[in-house]
Amino acid sequence: MTSKVKTAVLGVTGYAGFELTRILLRHPRLQKPLLLRREEGGKTQDLAETFPALSCNGGYPLEPFSIERLKKAGVSLLFLATPHELSRSLVPHIVREGIRVIDLSGAWRLREGEHRAVYGFEDHDPAAADEIMKQAVYGLSELHSNEVATASVVANPGCYATSVILGLAPLAKAGLIDRSKGVISDSKSGVSGAGKEATSRTHFVSVADNLSAYGVFKHRHFGEMLEQLGLSSEELIFTPHLLPIPRGILSTIYVHLARAITAAEVESCYRSFYAGRHWVRVFAPPKLPEIQYSLYSNYCDIGFCLADDGRRLVIVSCVDNLLKGAAGQAVQNMNVMCGWNEAEGLN
Amino acid sequence: MTSKVKTAVLGVTGYAGFELTRILLRHPRLQKPLLLRREEGGKTQDLAETFPALSCNGGYPLEPFSIERLKKAGVSLLFLATPHELSRSLVPHIVREGIRVIDLSGAWRLREGEHRAVYGFEDHDPAAADEIMKQAVYGLSELHSNEVATASVVANPGCYATSVILGLAPLAKAGLIDRSKGVISDSKSGVSGAGKEATSRTHFVSVADNLSAYGVFKHRHFGEMLEQLGLSSEELIFTPHLLPIPRGILSTIYVHLARAITAAEVESCYRSFYAGRHWVRVFAPPKLPEIQYSLYSNYCDIGFCLADDGRRLVIVSCVDNLLKGAAGQAVQNMNVMCGWNEAEGLN
Amino acid sequence: MTSKVKTAVLGVTGYAGFELTRILLRHPRLQKPLLLRREEGGKTQDLAETFPALSCNGGYPLEPFSIERLKKAGVSLLFLATPHELSRSLVPHIVREGIRVIDLSGAWRLREGEHRAVYGFEDHDPAAADEIMKQAVYGLSELHSNEVATASVVANPGCYATSVILGLAPLAKAGLIDRSKGVISDSKSGVSGAGKEATSRTHFVSVADNLSAYGVFKHRHFGEMLEQLGLSSEELIFTPHLLPIPRGILSTIYVHLARAITAAEVESCYRSFYAGRHWVRVFAPPKLPEIQYSLYSNYCDIGFCLADDGRRLVIVSCVDNLLKGAAGQAVQNMNVMCGWNEAEGLN
Amino acid sequence: MTSKVKTAVLGVTGYAGFELTRILLRHPRLQKPLLLRREEGGKTQDLAETFPALSCNGGYPLEPFSIERLKKAGVSLLFLATPHELSRSLVPHIVREGIRVIDLSGAWRLREGEHRAVYGFEDHDPAAADEIMKQAVYGLSELHSNEVATASVVANPGCYATSVILGLAPLAKAGLIDRSKGVISDSKSGVSGAGKEATSRTHFVSVADNLSAYGVFKHRHFGEMLEQLGLSSEELIFTPHLLPIPRGILSTIYVHLARAITAAEVESCYRSFYAGRHWVRVFAPPKLPEIQYSLYSNYCDIGFCLADDGRRLVIVSCVDNLLKGAAGQAVQNMNVMCGWNEAEGLN
Repeated sequence: MTSKVKTAVLGVTGYAGFELTRILLRHPRLQKPLLLRREEGGKTQDLAETFPALSCNGGYPLEPFSIERLKKAGVSLLFLATPHELSRSLVPHIVREGIRVIDLSGAWRLREGEHRAVYGFEDHDPAAADEIMKQAVYGLSELHSNEVATASVVANPGCYATSVILGLAPLAKAGLIDRSKGVISDSKSGVSGAGKEATSRTHFVSVADNLSAYGVFKHRHFGEMLEQLGLSSEELIFTPHLLPIPRGILSTIYVHLARAITAAEVESCYRSFYAGRHWVRVFAPPKLPEIQYSLYSNYCDIGFCLADDGRRLVIVSCVDNLLKGAAGQAVQNMNVMCGWNEAEGLN
Repeated sequence: MTSKVKTAVLGVTGYAGFELTRILLRHPRLQKPLLLRREEGGKTQDLAETFPALSCNGGYPLEPFSIERLKKAGVSLLFLATPHELSRSLVPHIVREGIRVIDLSGAWRLREGEHRAVYGFEDHDPAAADEIMKQAVYGLSELHSNEVATASVVANPGCYATSVILGLAPLAKAGLIDRSKGVISDSKSGVSGAGKEATSRTHFVSVADNLSAYGVFKHRHFGEMLEQLGLSSEELIFTPHLLPIPRGILSTIYVHLARAITAAEVESCYRSFYAGRHWVRVFAPPKLPEIQYSLYSNYCDIGFCLADDGRRLVIVSCVDNLLKGAAGQAVQNMNVMCGWNEAEGLN
Repeated sequence: MTSKVKTAVLGVTGYAGFELTRILLRHPRLQKPLLLRREEGGKTQDLAETFPALSCNGGYPLEPFSIERLKKAGVSLLFLATPHELSRSLVPHIVREGIRVIDLSGAWRLREGEHRAVYGFEDHDPAAADEIMKQAVYGLSELHSNEVATASVVANPGCYATSVILGLAPLAKAGLIDRSKGVISDSKSGVSGAGKEATSRTHFVSVADNLSAYGVFKHRHFGEMLEQLGLSSEELIFTPHLLPIPRGILSTIYVHLARAITAAEVESCYRSFYAGRHWVRVFAPPKLPEIQYSLYSNYCDIGFCLADDGRRLVIVSCVDNLLKGAAGQAVQNMNVMCGWNEAEGLN
Repeated sequence: MTSKVKTAVLGVTGYAGFELTRILLRHPRLQKPLLLRREEGGKTQDLAETFPALSCNGGYPLEPFSIERLKKAGVSLLFLATPHELSRSLVPHIVREGIRVIDLSGAWRLREGEHRAVYGFEDHDPAAADEIMKQAVYGLSELHSNEVATASVVANPGCYATSVILGLAPLAKAGLIDRSKGVISDSKSGVSGAGKEATSRTHFVSVADNLSAYGVFKHRHFGEMLEQLGLSSEELIFTPHLLPIPRGILSTIYVHLARAITAAEVESCYRSFYAGRHWVRVFAPPKLPEIQYSLYSNYCDIGFCLADDGRRLVIVSCVDNLLKGAAGQAVQNMNVMCGWNEAEGLN
């Protein structure tokens, strides 16, 4: 048996960082991960102070970040669960040290030009950032496992984007979508997708007994979907909604087909596309996925309903936004990068 | 001042019947309503036994139903919150007595032929039912207030249908919809919309922390929407979802426009269509309705977001399924039938 | 008929202030209330900006506060839904103008000395504050309606305190409590009781699927309970809990009785104590109140369960924290102060 | 390494049975468990039909139960997640075959006489049931690990009882409780504790936005608590409440101490009692457990708050009712019975 790999996580105190840490702590191929926080000075803290669910287990030291610390600990893979601005400035320095990166932020998901437009900020060192952009791989291993396997920087997909792209990719690759009539994803997410910051929007009383749409035509995950699916911005409408639940995403996706087909053909299209992929489950009609089925798992569940005319298709795609939509997918990417089974440590 | 009107309610123990009763009890134009239950024999009960929220207020006698009881009490208007099978057999007898009916079930919403197909049952007396069908008016007073005013039988619309039809009617009447690309309503409802029956589907543990789609391409409210909007079944997709909240509906509606227009034109189209209608609120963009805004009110809230190309429109339409989607709308219809202000007793 | 009374509300943007405004707007004895915000300058805003549920109803101008504005508008009664520090400094000036005050904060609920200890701040003008303290009446009209009727300053009770005091007062006044064994109130509140501020504690993900106890032995409402019930701090334990619901309080109260009695005696004790009081409902055993029964109403619902030994009593007391626990009770106090029926405008 | 043990589960389709199955499937010391359903005939089904969260993983055959099937499969340990009536009649036959039993029902938790009173039914073969009663061990391994280790029949504790007994046992054993003033446990549970049956009480609309007390002075878990804690029925009040969450229990427990002590003494009492026990976490004050901390884990979390007088103690004890309160504790018992680490397969 080979020796265990040393990983580190920067940004463990957000929802995704916490889930990631929990998985890494149990992963059979890993040493105990180095847990790092953004502030560059200060003392070591204990992660259990932030997450009492970790209490009384012997301590999870949370150390201040520095590249020296990474090197000294022999870290070969760093997970970033940090704001995209920090990722943009930090990753060039990490890669220079020969440390591979899986970045959970949106920093490297889009092609360069579009990225700066969508995320609206200036890189401190644009040349270094451009260099990273060239190497960065979009970490949806169901689509790009070969590139992920050898990548130095993996851009872990957005949670909404994961549900929408996996729900549409088999049809898009098979040329079955009638783009002239437009594709729609009506997506709904639990509140952890909006992050841990306390705002009037995440206040319990604002969310409970409610549902709201937001970011219509302008959500940040929109660009990822277009790029990965090969659609133009006029061919896709993506509407996110905030659900009164802590976690989980359900996307209801509407497609006009390029030709009339049968439900069996649709099912076969999905099954063959995802053959051998552990983390996508295709449901046989008429059974549709629900958010509960994939909650607390790394699965993306996909089901569908075809109209009698064989031309209109409603697809339902569910993920746990913190697992397949963030931390679980990051570990899946690590497994692919390290040549392990993509299910390792995720069951 | 004219004398107060005597009404009765049959089926007060369901969610809609209870809301209806609460409104009628406070309505300034009405005598205390006669509360009736389906079982034709037995003793008078107290509604507070079923609804402890009504406790200690002097009693709400719940009497067994009979036509004689209606006549003896001088009832001129009967609300039915009963299964559609019962409405089909009962209404001809009621109308024969000169008593007007507002029926909250689906019994009289569709044109005859389609109705029997959708609801799948045989009328005991098809001739009598056909006779009623000819008189019955679809009780969406924002569209049909003249017909409602004089109707002997008003078919109160379905809750989903109310949100979808009101969200689309201004565009449909203005000929602004490009039907060739299809209209989609992705609708989400609280659990009271599924009724009071305890099933595995309404069990708390099944609904909480979950979201599920159901009845794709085949929900019973689909036919109402098509008839009222003048769309064919291939031009509309309606997907209902079950939300983990007690009440409220939000429909996200997707339309391709027949020509490029501005947001101001869209807003103007809605505002002029609903000018003078108390119970529809049109939101100025970019503000969109949320379920909370119309909860516990009789409002239908409508907002929208137009794509930059001026050709693709996302409409958000919200109602409280038990009020504007059921009991409130029934009272609004009564107000119109009696020549009162349509807001009377509903604020 | 007498002319309608002019009221004002300062602090309408919190949860209680908003509920209060909604009630005052519909109250048949009142002119449209003057809505005021704390900032002393600036332009008039519209309350519907903060509360979209008020949209499209013709506007709710929200004006900057000043004593001149109160006088000019002819306000005779001012509601304060402001932090207690502001109430302490403001009320002396208001009373000097002959305007009566109903204060929803904790500023005037306790006897002077204890107040400063509990709330931990210095009055700017201690003499003026002491003067107000002498006049202020604890606004639980079920206990003090005579004093409330003539008060210039009414201290509206805390939400938890309302449920606990009303649940215990009949027994306490009848001398039925064995104080030597201690009284316990295990109370549970919805999140609106924690206020509108967005904090990590009110974040949806912190509250949903959770329950937590807090403030054991040191909650601010504890002192009110002791004073009103005549108990020492060693004779009562009060433990508040945060429930994953927007609103509603249920207190489960444990009492050892001074002598063995029957359930009929207990019920009779409560019924006679609350005879003629509209807003307390006593449940006959074995029926116990639930939070839903009094939600969106001004009722305090009280039920109980007596042990077979006739010596140990479990009392359940429920209120809607924003109504009987805040805004509704404030209006009830206004009704008493103005000599109206205490149910006026609250049904 | 020793060969893996063969287990079986009867009653996998309830909430506890399902959780149990999920744990057993991953337990490193076990073969794949035999999944059995109550009906004695019929075909093999797939558990994924009942629990879609198990979809697409190769199948979980669910076979009809028979003792022959147990013997043929070489089962040495049977878990029962069945109604207590069935457990009472079945267990004597199982034990006769030399198969050990862990029973999640209430069938064997109480001493014989009391059991029949509480559960109110007649044994078909009282002599056989009496024989089992003599052997059955109450499966709270923090209290009885030696007996559990060698037991042929383990009565897995009730969920409420687990939280209350573990919260009180250290004080009870240390003689620190002043029984003359009574002990109170005000306990709150998520809805899965009420079982999977769809009733008006478990309907989403009945539970959401609500809290209710029930079964005061007469809940079935009451007897277990008395027996295990050595209290009389006049010394303990236990009040269960139904929380609007799917799972988790929090018990707030009130104790008068026999003498004034310090918080450090209290903490030390708990820590020494649970020294070396993996599944109880004692919180240092002022930190109190919340339901979320132990959710989806087998921990019982215990914290406390001591009054200034050193005589009154509020203890908060939390468990996940389906894990430490049912399936997790059953696996913990299996670990003890088999001589394994009690944490095996439960992390």
